[in-house]
Amino acid sequence: MVPQWLIEKKRDGGILSDGEIHDFISAYTAGTIPDYQMSALAMAIYFQGMTTEETASLTDAMMHSGDTIEWSDCPLPTADKHSTGGIGDKLSLMLAPLVATQGVAVPMISGRGLGITGGTLDKLESIPGYNTRLSVSEFKRVVNQVGCSIIGQTARLAPADQKLYALRDVTGTVPSIPLITASIMSKKLAEGAATLVFDVKCGIAAFMKTRENATKLLESLVNTGKSMGRKCAALLTSMDQPLGRTAGNAVEVNEAVETLKNAGPADTRKLTLDLSLEMVALSYPERPREQIRDALEAALASGAALEKFRQMVEAQGGDPRFIDSPTLLPQPKCAREVPSPVSGTVSNVNADTIGRIVLQLGGNRTATTDVIDLAAGVDQLVQEGETVETGQPLMRLLTRDAARAESLIQLAQSAVTFGNSQA
Amino acid sequence: MVPQWLIEKKRDGGILSDGEIHDFISAYTAGTIPDYQMSALAMAIYFQGMTTEETASLTDAMMHSGDTIEWSDCPLPTADKHSTGGIGDKLSLMLAPLVATQGVAVPMISGRGLGITGGTLDKLESIPGYNTRLSVSEFKRVVNQVGCSIIGQTARLAPADQKLYALRDVTGTVPSIPLITASIMSKKLAEGAATLVFDVKCGIAAFMKTRENATKLLESLVNTGKSMGRKCAALLTSMDQPLGRTAGNAVEVNEAVETLKNAGPADTRKLTLDLSLEMVALSYPERPREQIRDALEAALASGAALEKFRQMVEAQGGDPRFIDSPTLLPQPKCAREVPSPVSGTVSNVNADTIGRIVLQLGGNRTATTDVIDLAAGVDQLVQEGETVETGQPLMRLLTRDAARAESLIQLAQSAVTFGNSQA
Repeated sequence: MVPQWLIEKKRDGGILSDGEIHDFISAYTAGTIPDYQMSALAMAIYFQGMTTEETASLTDAMMHSGDTIEWSDCPLPTADKHSTGGIGDKLSLMLAPLVATQGVAVPMISGRGLGITGGTLDKLESIPGYNTRLSVSEFKRVVNQVGCSIIGQTARLAPADQKLYALRDVTGTVPSIPLITASIMSKKLAEGAATLVFDVKCGIAAFMKTRENATKLLESLVNTGKSMGRKCAALLTSMDQPLGRTAGNAVEVNEAVETLKNAGPADTRKLTLDLSLEMVALSYPERPREQIRDALEAALASGAALEKFRQMVEAQGGDPRFIDSPTLLPQPKCAREVPSPVSGTVSNVNADTIGRIVLQLGGNRTATTDVIDLAAGVDQLVQEGETVETGQPLMRLLTRDAARAESLIQLAQSAVTFGNSQA
Repeated sequence: MVPQWLIEKKRDGGILSDGEIHDFISAYTAGTIPDYQMSALAMAIYFQGMTTEETASLTDAMMHSGDTIEWSDCPLPTADKHSTGGIGDKLSLMLAPLVATQGVAVPMISGRGLGITGGTLDKLESIPGYNTRLSVSEFKRVVNQVGCSIIGQTARLAPADQKLYALRDVTGTVPSIPLITASIMSKKLAEGAATLVFDVKCGIAAFMKTRENATKLLESLVNTGKSMGRKCAALLTSMDQPLGRTAGNAVEVNEAVETLKNAGPADTRKLTLDLSLEMVALSYPERPREQIRDALEAALASGAALEKFRQMVEAQGGDPRFIDSPTLLPQPKCAREVPSPVSGTVSNVNADTIGRIVLQLGGNRTATTDVIDLAAGVDQLVQEGETVETGQPLMRLLTRDAARAESLIQLAQSAVTFGNSQA
């Protein structure tokens, strides 16, 4: 294979063969194709796109660039969820144990937060003792024993994606549907779950800003997953406003626990149930959907889902006492209430602004090497439709830096829009 | 400057500012922007193009990445020609001394052959003793003394182009009008001639295959040159058939000498005169074009142009005796005549096939590190409109490898098409 011929073929709108794609990716992973040829190909793919077959080949090549996990020895059907990421998106924390109550094993490999988008791994690491760095055999042990496990990506899982993702980030080749698809899918497929459910976010704080682009990504993910023999479903959900009343790390764990205690904000609970339903329904196609939904609600009401969560935390070395004593989670030095400048009914909470506030409070990172303040973030956030009086809190800013909180008050006030405000 | 923001801007069809382009190119030349960002930008430019202003900024940035030559101390107007390259294109060898007879100084920096396309430097190096590696001060001395000089590119002239060209070659980003323009123009502008005439080739053996693309390049070259304060003209000429009756290195020098002796093939002579006319006319706009053409023809007839050529060869260390004794040039071990398989009138000689034959005979290189056999090539080539009897020679194959010549007979026969052949 002459790498530039393959780049030229894609540049000119040609369709790359399965063999060409595999050769290119394996040579890139091995380092015999340099970054400058990979980035040129990535830019050509950005402009010319890829067919479903090409995307599947790229996904397959990246998936097989490292280890893959095999679940044939697991007696239960396996399922996982992937979200394209948002503000306050703590769904994985509830969804994994909830789905596990229904006889579906959930082996979940999650990522870290970057920019305004939070990451499940960071949230879990605010639980004292919780180990996200399990080996594959430990991961399998926890899944087999508890029914679910959430860990971080290992260096041996889809290394081509890790290398390519870092390159795309600095070469303007991130927003390409086939490249995003292959990045997401290669990791998810390497993880081995038979069923994959996608939560494709769309809106002001989502990776996909428009419904059109989000739909394209959704279709690409589902088509690629199906073409590679997995059961797939996807929901297109809004990311214009934050999910729930918290955004950060420890605060989101706390809200997840509330939800698992059958309380918590309605939006968070509903989307958790919707996605869980898809995972269980694809895993047990014979079960009526209404019956599954009832069973999921019952698992929240009975505490069965919370119990699964407790077992997962314990199995991964975490101290589960925080479930009953939230103050055992990292606590902020300063919790500054943001007073409403007006009276009125909340018509919108800008998720992008909330994400930027969390970032500036120290609750997320601008570079992958930054250290997060796990206690930082936002809680007690008002939601759409709620009525607030002048001076009542719109949210609390949690941080170790009181001056920083003070300086963000105005920005925080600007995040909330009122339908019928009175100054 | 964040390099990926600039890549993203161009990717999304934005127009880069002069400052952005200069910053990017100077950081790339210095090595602080890596190849993988340059190749991604090059691919984005391939797809989104560049405005005349952007192309001029890129050209200027690349031109100023190294030394530039100043001719303000030269009493004569300066002019140079650039050809996009072809088969049998020995024009520079005649044109430089011919134009110099008209009071125009010709400082010419030429390149080497690659693939099917020949290079003036290689041709000159078949002259015993001719030194193509003059320093800038030696180059200026020869131009001032003789009126013309032809040398090779130095490492200090447009180093950004040398670096970028090597990168484009392996990343599928060669055929982009703004990138080609900046590559050609940055070298030509650094060389400092006030007038630039372009011979943009179009056809089967040209870099630009279609008239449409050749016209785009022609306009881009002329517009960029003019926007940077140079006098520019361009001819769009055919490269479907070879120029003249020879293709190779020593054989082309020999044909150039014949032309300077007022003989030689009509096509070669005509194009030399046409391009020379443009160079002189732009340099002396007050001189009537007919008078210039007459003077150029007189310089060929009188031997004045040949004398300039002899002076240039001597000034660059060459032994001019080959001018009267062609056998002092490198001679092939084997000269194999290719018999015509039919009788008829030649309707076409395929320049691409001839180029590939020269390459296989050893007269050109497939990689820049290959060593050329300067005696190898093709001579005594028939031309369109000539009548040939069965068994009469269509051309001679010159090489050191008789078996190789033998194996190319059929290919050589296939290069010549007859309008009304009789087997």
